[in-house]
Amino acid sequence: MLVVKAPGTRYMKQWCDHLSHLVPGLEIRPGTDEVPPEKVRYALTWEPPSGWLASLPNLEMVVSIGAGVDHITRDPQWPRHLPLVRMGGAEIGQRMGEYVAWACLHLLRLGRTYAVQQAEARWNYVNPEFTAEDLTVGIMGMGTLGAQVVPMLGGLGYSVVGWSRSRKNVAGAESFAGPEEFDAFIRRSNVLVCLLPSTPETTGIINAELLAKLPEGAAVVNAGRGPHLVVPDLVAALDSGHLSGAVLDVFEPEPLAADSPLWAHPKVTVTPHVASVARVKDRARFVADVITEFEAGRPVPNLYDPARGY
Amino acid sequence: MLVVKAPGTRYMKQWCDHLSHLVPGLEIRPGTDEVPPEKVRYALTWEPPSGWLASLPNLEMVVSIGAGVDHITRDPQWPRHLPLVRMGGAEIGQRMGEYVAWACLHLLRLGRTYAVQQAEARWNYVNPEFTAEDLTVGIMGMGTLGAQVVPMLGGLGYSVVGWSRSRKNVAGAESFAGPEEFDAFIRRSNVLVCLLPSTPETTGIINAELLAKLPEGAAVVNAGRGPHLVVPDLVAALDSGHLSGAVLDVFEPEPLAADSPLWAHPKVTVTPHVASVARVKDRARFVADVITEFEAGRPVPNLYDPARGY
Repeated sequence: MLVVKAPGTRYMKQWCDHLSHLVPGLEIRPGTDEVPPEKVRYALTWEPPSGWLASLPNLEMVVSIGAGVDHITRDPQWPRHLPLVRMGGAEIGQRMGEYVAWACLHLLRLGRTYAVQQAEARWNYVNPEFTAEDLTVGIMGMGTLGAQVVPMLGGLGYSVVGWSRSRKNVAGAESFAGPEEFDAFIRRSNVLVCLLPSTPETTGIINAELLAKLPEGAAVVNAGRGPHLVVPDLVAALDSGHLSGAVLDVFEPEPLAADSPLWAHPKVTVTPHVASVARVKDRARFVADVITEFEAGRPVPNLYDPARGY
Repeated sequence: MLVVKAPGTRYMKQWCDHLSHLVPGLEIRPGTDEVPPEKVRYALTWEPPSGWLASLPNLEMVVSIGAGVDHITRDPQWPRHLPLVRMGGAEIGQRMGEYVAWACLHLLRLGRTYAVQQAEARWNYVNPEFTAEDLTVGIMGMGTLGAQVVPMLGGLGYSVVGWSRSRKNVAGAESFAGPEEFDAFIRRSNVLVCLLPSTPETTGIINAELLAKLPEGAAVVNAGRGPHLVVPDLVAALDSGHLSGAVLDVFEPEPLAADSPLWAHPKVTVTPHVASVARVKDRARFVADVITEFEAGRPVPNLYDPARGY
């Protein structure tokens, strides 16, 4: 049996409906149902209640409903001995690429400035100084998602550089690797895009020290996780004029507090954690593939690595 | 002598500074200077005062400061017998591509919805139903600019169709041509992008009849000219739910009136005629090339055709 446990009764039902036809012989139940804990072999979950996974004695695998797994590993009791799978599938890369392309263009083409003017019914002619061909986008976190973003940015005219733990060979993006090449990467990034997973190592990585190393007039896109960004440091760098703008999709905590200074900041665009939420239909196909591989004894994709923390 | 005449003393001076080194032997003067009318051989202009061009007895060529020439041909006295050149150069295509890509992604990724929510400091999770791969962008006006836009949209995942007077062979865009294929083109366009020149034939082309033929949930981007769009028809189609959104860069008249219903419309994004304003530096290079070709007796590019009206 697979149990789907996530916030929202309708949402759980939607997952069950999509999954029910995809894995023959597997019973699919929403987390709302009373099921004998010993019957649950697979858990598909978002923000599981603390202790819930540990209460399932015959659990064999956990699958995250999103690309991140921090919402699972923050539970002190999560079953570390079991395979934990990050969500994948074709659509999450496509959607992340669209979001990052939109965010980069929104910064380049002064989308926030025009939105503020529109709210005041004010026509004020301001024209961007640069084109995409003048700028380099730096992608911090060049995993599967990062690699899918590169050609979309390249097609718009941007140069692209990427930073990751290990060297990557992605066509169209110069690769920077490891801590020793981090500064060189940052100094090249006119637009810094964060796609990192949330781990203790990456917490607070976008701080005053990093921001000071970005080129004059640079901008920041955070589509990773809220804890990556030190908000007061970002606001200070925007207010000093060193940075030209930011597009932020993730916050700590979420929802973003109504009294956050980010909402009204004239250089900040806020979106409600929507960068890459693929349709359930597409993700259900991925989950079915993972279970099929697992049951056949073959390696499953997107496996959590405790040494890396994602 | 070449005279630069456009709104803004500083702007005219900027043009003169850039042009002064590019065409050896040619005197460059701003429209603010008192110059003997008979000495002016070339006019580089935006919104020339009515009758000004006709007052220059030895004028040989007129160059428009923008891609459109309607701001010149609306003067009843403009010298029809002289070559009239539309602005070109590499940068206007790049900028138009960026704007159209941004506008399409802004519509797809609910940029206007999030901007309205941000203005109210309101976190409300709404996720786009589709990806670019589900949608077709229809480009109305497949000239030089349109052709440069196609690969940028294709790289984001969109399918692209184009409509023009005559059949075009642009890689990545299915070509529809002439009035007889117009309806088939419209029925395919999930996002209709207007890049047409402003002529009597194209005035009011985006009207209730056209909008009704767009697929359910379609969106409109107008980066052509204000008169292409019948604003009340657009608002009605948005309000009925038939259309999902619009991004508008051009209006009639400009600036857009402070009491226009477009400013506050929750489905409309307004930008202040910025879709494709290349840097003076890039455009001055184009103007210099045009004059060099003209003086050498060779054909000049982007020539106005009175039969087409652009």
